[in-house]
Amino acid sequence: MIVKMSKWATPEQIAAVETKLHEWGYKTGKMVGEEITLIGVYGDISRLPTGEIREMGGVDALIPISRAYKRAAQKGEPGRLIHKTVRIGDMEVGGDALTVIAGPCSVESEAQIMEAARMVKAAGAKVLRGGVVKYRSSPYSGWEGIGSGSVEALRHGLKLIVKAGKEFELPTVVEVLDPHDVAIYEDMGVDCLQVGEPNSKNQALLNRLRETPLPVIHKRGNSLDIEAYLLWVERIMAEGKENVILCERGIVSPNRYTRNTLDLGGIAALYYQLSCLPIAIDASHGTGIRDLVHPMTLAGIMAGASVVLVEAHPNPLVAKSDGFQGLFPEQLTRLVTACERVWELRRCLEPLYIPSALLERQYETRVAADRTRFFGVT
Amino acid sequence: MIVKMSKWATPEQIAAVETKLHEWGYKTGKMVGEEITLIGVYGDISRLPTGEIREMGGVDALIPISRAYKRAAQKGEPGRLIHKTVRIGDMEVGGDALTVIAGPCSVESEAQIMEAARMVKAAGAKVLRGGVVKYRSSPYSGWEGIGSGSVEALRHGLKLIVKAGKEFELPTVVEVLDPHDVAIYEDMGVDCLQVGEPNSKNQALLNRLRETPLPVIHKRGNSLDIEAYLLWVERIMAEGKENVILCERGIVSPNRYTRNTLDLGGIAALYYQLSCLPIAIDASHGTGIRDLVHPMTLAGIMAGASVVLVEAHPNPLVAKSDGFQGLFPEQLTRLVTACERVWELRRCLEPLYIPSALLERQYETRVAADRTRFFGVT
Amino acid sequence: MIVKMSKWATPEQIAAVETKLHEWGYKTGKMVGEEITLIGVYGDISRLPTGEIREMGGVDALIPISRAYKRAAQKGEPGRLIHKTVRIGDMEVGGDALTVIAGPCSVESEAQIMEAARMVKAAGAKVLRGGVVKYRSSPYSGWEGIGSGSVEALRHGLKLIVKAGKEFELPTVVEVLDPHDVAIYEDMGVDCLQVGEPNSKNQALLNRLRETPLPVIHKRGNSLDIEAYLLWVERIMAEGKENVILCERGIVSPNRYTRNTLDLGGIAALYYQLSCLPIAIDASHGTGIRDLVHPMTLAGIMAGASVVLVEAHPNPLVAKSDGFQGLFPEQLTRLVTACERVWELRRCLEPLYIPSALLERQYETRVAADRTRFFGVT
Amino acid sequence: MIVKMSKWATPEQIAAVETKLHEWGYKTGKMVGEEITLIGVYGDISRLPTGEIREMGGVDALIPISRAYKRAAQKGEPGRLIHKTVRIGDMEVGGDALTVIAGPCSVESEAQIMEAARMVKAAGAKVLRGGVVKYRSSPYSGWEGIGSGSVEALRHGLKLIVKAGKEFELPTVVEVLDPHDVAIYEDMGVDCLQVGEPNSKNQALLNRLRETPLPVIHKRGNSLDIEAYLLWVERIMAEGKENVILCERGIVSPNRYTRNTLDLGGIAALYYQLSCLPIAIDASHGTGIRDLVHPMTLAGIMAGASVVLVEAHPNPLVAKSDGFQGLFPEQLTRLVTACERVWELRRCLEPLYIPSALLERQYETRVAADRTRFFGVT
Repeated sequence: MIVKMSKWATPEQIAAVETKLHEWGYKTGKMVGEEITLIGVYGDISRLPTGEIREMGGVDALIPISRAYKRAAQKGEPGRLIHKTVRIGDMEVGGDALTVIAGPCSVESEAQIMEAARMVKAAGAKVLRGGVVKYRSSPYSGWEGIGSGSVEALRHGLKLIVKAGKEFELPTVVEVLDPHDVAIYEDMGVDCLQVGEPNSKNQALLNRLRETPLPVIHKRGNSLDIEAYLLWVERIMAEGKENVILCERGIVSPNRYTRNTLDLGGIAALYYQLSCLPIAIDASHGTGIRDLVHPMTLAGIMAGASVVLVEAHPNPLVAKSDGFQGLFPEQLTRLVTACERVWELRRCLEPLYIPSALLERQYETRVAADRTRFFGVT
Repeated sequence: MIVKMSKWATPEQIAAVETKLHEWGYKTGKMVGEEITLIGVYGDISRLPTGEIREMGGVDALIPISRAYKRAAQKGEPGRLIHKTVRIGDMEVGGDALTVIAGPCSVESEAQIMEAARMVKAAGAKVLRGGVVKYRSSPYSGWEGIGSGSVEALRHGLKLIVKAGKEFELPTVVEVLDPHDVAIYEDMGVDCLQVGEPNSKNQALLNRLRETPLPVIHKRGNSLDIEAYLLWVERIMAEGKENVILCERGIVSPNRYTRNTLDLGGIAALYYQLSCLPIAIDASHGTGIRDLVHPMTLAGIMAGASVVLVEAHPNPLVAKSDGFQGLFPEQLTRLVTACERVWELRRCLEPLYIPSALLERQYETRVAADRTRFFGVT
Repeated sequence: MIVKMSKWATPEQIAAVETKLHEWGYKTGKMVGEEITLIGVYGDISRLPTGEIREMGGVDALIPISRAYKRAAQKGEPGRLIHKTVRIGDMEVGGDALTVIAGPCSVESEAQIMEAARMVKAAGAKVLRGGVVKYRSSPYSGWEGIGSGSVEALRHGLKLIVKAGKEFELPTVVEVLDPHDVAIYEDMGVDCLQVGEPNSKNQALLNRLRETPLPVIHKRGNSLDIEAYLLWVERIMAEGKENVILCERGIVSPNRYTRNTLDLGGIAALYYQLSCLPIAIDASHGTGIRDLVHPMTLAGIMAGASVVLVEAHPNPLVAKSDGFQGLFPEQLTRLVTACERVWELRRCLEPLYIPSALLERQYETRVAADRTRFFGVT
Repeated sequence: MIVKMSKWATPEQIAAVETKLHEWGYKTGKMVGEEITLIGVYGDISRLPTGEIREMGGVDALIPISRAYKRAAQKGEPGRLIHKTVRIGDMEVGGDALTVIAGPCSVESEAQIMEAARMVKAAGAKVLRGGVVKYRSSPYSGWEGIGSGSVEALRHGLKLIVKAGKEFELPTVVEVLDPHDVAIYEDMGVDCLQVGEPNSKNQALLNRLRETPLPVIHKRGNSLDIEAYLLWVERIMAEGKENVILCERGIVSPNRYTRNTLDLGGIAALYYQLSCLPIAIDASHGTGIRDLVHPMTLAGIMAGASVVLVEAHPNPLVAKSDGFQGLFPEQLTRLVTACERVWELRRCLEPLYIPSALLERQYETRVAADRTRFFGVT
């Protein structure tokens, strides 16, 4: 962190900032320029009371240097990155194998979720997803999920998907919307919780999830910078929780053709530079167009995802919600096959990726010679 | 609503869509083009199961014609718009008078909120605001509000602000984050609830607010189109609730200098075209820069706001949160004065605004003559 | 500018960066942290070859501290800002008086522009605008302006608007699209050139405008941060040109209701913090909705604009381009009246604006006392 | 196109719109709803004077149904899409083979571009790129390209890259900024022209390119919707030109970590649904981070690109511009190898992609049975 003093700051104000930082146990450095003075703050600034500093006399701005998220951060170094795994049921996610999580947008009936689980298993996907209380952008959509309206309905809906999962030996992922429901999800045997996009910044819910032993898939809010997203993820992890999975499902942009804009560059940044956590690609919500789910899922794997979230339905034409983006069974089967081939290739191509840090030294030694060679100067 | 059939749709598929719509009680119309057929759906489509239609064979897309929000909508006509009022305590908001709602970001102590209420009253503002449980983007900020952590803390925090409000005869507005806390807010005597930006799409919270008799200020999410925002607002109102206030507090954009981008064009669209609800301008969060709060609040009034939300603190230099955007007491006093002057002028200038619908007929009669006059053609 | 070294940087790499900066005549400072070292660069960095630094071994990133635009920048201090004026013909723009620039989207015929100029004059606006070569988003619109297609057509179109301006004693503003046409505009007697939004980053055109004595209105590109915009404006001014006017006409955002999103916070930032140049508000393009032009123009003035750009037509129903956002004559007349009233009020309210820098000292002296008062600590 | 009449439109106004459309040779249809009337316009509406319609009395809005771009559009049908090829020199682009276009940001000297061409050839790339006049966001960067400042300089710069291309049998791609320079590029033997992002909406330049026989790579502007982009591309093609290549190089979004946000969903939409033209991925500008170029290029191919644009330099540490995003030679070599492997896999996986249109009929026949099966209703 750098504290930038204003050009009207007095020496006393500058000294006061330094004193305050020392009181809090930080070491500082200082650069006195012609117009302005900068004060560097050393060490772990994630707990620095920045508001208090920003308010001190003569302070113009705070300039971040190191990141305010710690647990969600990548801690390796170029060429030796650290990528953690997370368990969902007895599946290990984020390791050597790709994990495809598939299922309908909503659990609609016992027969439907059973059939969906059969489809998911047959397609070769490894985890079953299905919503029990649904987000709807219009209050008049009529259907807010089999589990909406009462605790009994919620328990009933969760029971159905857990039963379907057990029948076909698939761990289950279900979205949770209300912090007070978390215990019910745990109690009913759900294997993994999901935070949906509209709740990405729901502080009450995220705080509550600190306490669950279940893994959590936290979807990126559609207006969040990739590092701001990590700071919301960090909220779940702040007291020690480790088993969190990231998920890119699209952000806002000037493109209006797709429902959202999948930020695969964000996935690549997370995987190659910023985070140690497994990353999921959700191209169903990320495009909102059934026929773009296939290519965008494959592209997401190539960018760095190791988890695939995808909506599919035994017959999307009768789905009660979001059927227009759910895959037909044949499409799911072929997508899983294609995903495995792309994953295999990505793993095989990994040795071809050389981080610049491993090359820079060598090219530095040539700088003078190359300047002469190219520009005729020394 | 128009149902656009794909160019490969069969006559049977087109007939099936019409039949289904008729079953649901809608009248339809049809336009058969060279390549595609369009089916128009007449009547109130707010409860139409669009997902089911979208999934029918041969359907390419649904094209909205009329709006899916009804209660939040403007129901007047050009030149005779309808603008409702909402009561906060015994204040009437959205009517002939401007309402300034001011106070600190957070209730920090009894002494602080008392002093803040005194400041607000002295400045001429009419409603006291103050957060008791706070949103923080970093989980390590340390301070999440005097009311965070337990029901007792929440009750204590609410008690302080309600007491301060009563002492200075100011109704109070407090943000609520958890649906299960609503009853506590009501019980403690808060006069108005606020939904913050990160919860703008929090379905569990919005559904719960349908039942409260208290007025609600619902802040626009920073990634929401102005009509998508009204659809989330409609969620609170869907079962009959009327006392809701809109609030523009900034959206994402390519401008990175201000913390958010205040969409005053959205305010003007709401006021002059889309909604009957009172509109608040929150330039504190909308700019994130203390010295821009004054001009942007005034601009917001000029665009159509009749409620001002503004952060101020007896001494922002000691504020525990967001002090950098809170006004100094002198700034608040002068802003309230300026707001009243701008409001007065806006009211006085209203007769100068002529909706185009009142002029079109007259100019239509001149079209032929003007074409001849300008272009020499008939 | 701060040079942030990577955590793997060697002492030799750090020394090399310092040496290079010294060779270029810069003074430097250094802060050695636990993990990383920062090197501060003092002085005017606008001509620093940043690319070369960024490429040196061990350099992680460059962090800007002071601004890379100089001529377009605000050079005053809080409470004593400097706001320059620019002449268009014999009008002084940006000073004590508001300047309304009005006219049709396009010059369509001699009769039309004459009638338009009469309307503009009668309404009380001071400058006449009108396009001679038009931007069209579709290549099939059919009409690309009276001046498109040949040098003769261009001269003819320019002659018409200049003649109309002279007849009604109104200086004229016309958009230029091709750098090779600038001399023709000068030759034909146009009083002010305009750079349209699609050309906001057209380097060849901006470079050419360095040489014209005519004033230039440079419209902000719809994807530009407000400071990135100033850097493109600076391109015109880089070799000494001073007479440039800024213009906010809308940027992209999640709001899809208006054609663009007017960033009035950007206007306030320019006026109160960033720039010394006059600022125009163009609510015609900024909203794309005729009935929102009036309120948004007034809001723009309140935010800091002193120039109004507005489209109006003697009969917009016969306009060949963009008529849907052009005002009817009655609307223009009333808007000019309203603008003057708002301008007058803004001037009158100016003493109520107190920059925080003038208050901070006084509140700093109270910090300890207020902490004790509010929190019971010293 | 649908013309939506306002709810206050009179029967006379509705009839007038129909009459006007018939005069222009269009057939129409009509749907009369409870509140509003819609008029459908049949046939090729790309040349419909929409402005004139929009201005007619009683017209509320125009709702597009079919696309206003024709030549750039996809004209096949699901399962039988049409993808055209474009020739650059004697290379066929967009067909069975992937085309990698590589080279430095700028031509810096004869020695440098020769060495760069050698590197490009050795890496296995097929086309040489290099800028001769450069875009720079700061006017003070100092270096605007070896070809800037005079016609002689431009000719000299172009001569160098063409010579290097010939020496290593690589066709060349060079960006053109000024419409008046096109003939010089043709004359000097450049094989392909490029329109850069800042010029994506430069009408004068795009109009001029209609006349060149050379192929053109047109980069998407960073604020353009994908279909709005196609409309600007259509401008080059409007009079018959066919040899145009699309290029995704990043758009604005809330993500601030990467320089731009690569919209790979836009690539997938172009390839699978909207356009027949070859698509390039430019991950150098699209990420602005050297170490993300590799994964994002591969992801772009998987999404639908068949052309790769990538910056590389014999020693990026001495590059005069944008070296921070240019690959080191080893990185280029490995990227080309990886691209070929990914391309090969994509081709091999193509049979796994099933457009929904090919499945819908079959699932429609099951709808009643599946409703009964899942929901127990008929």
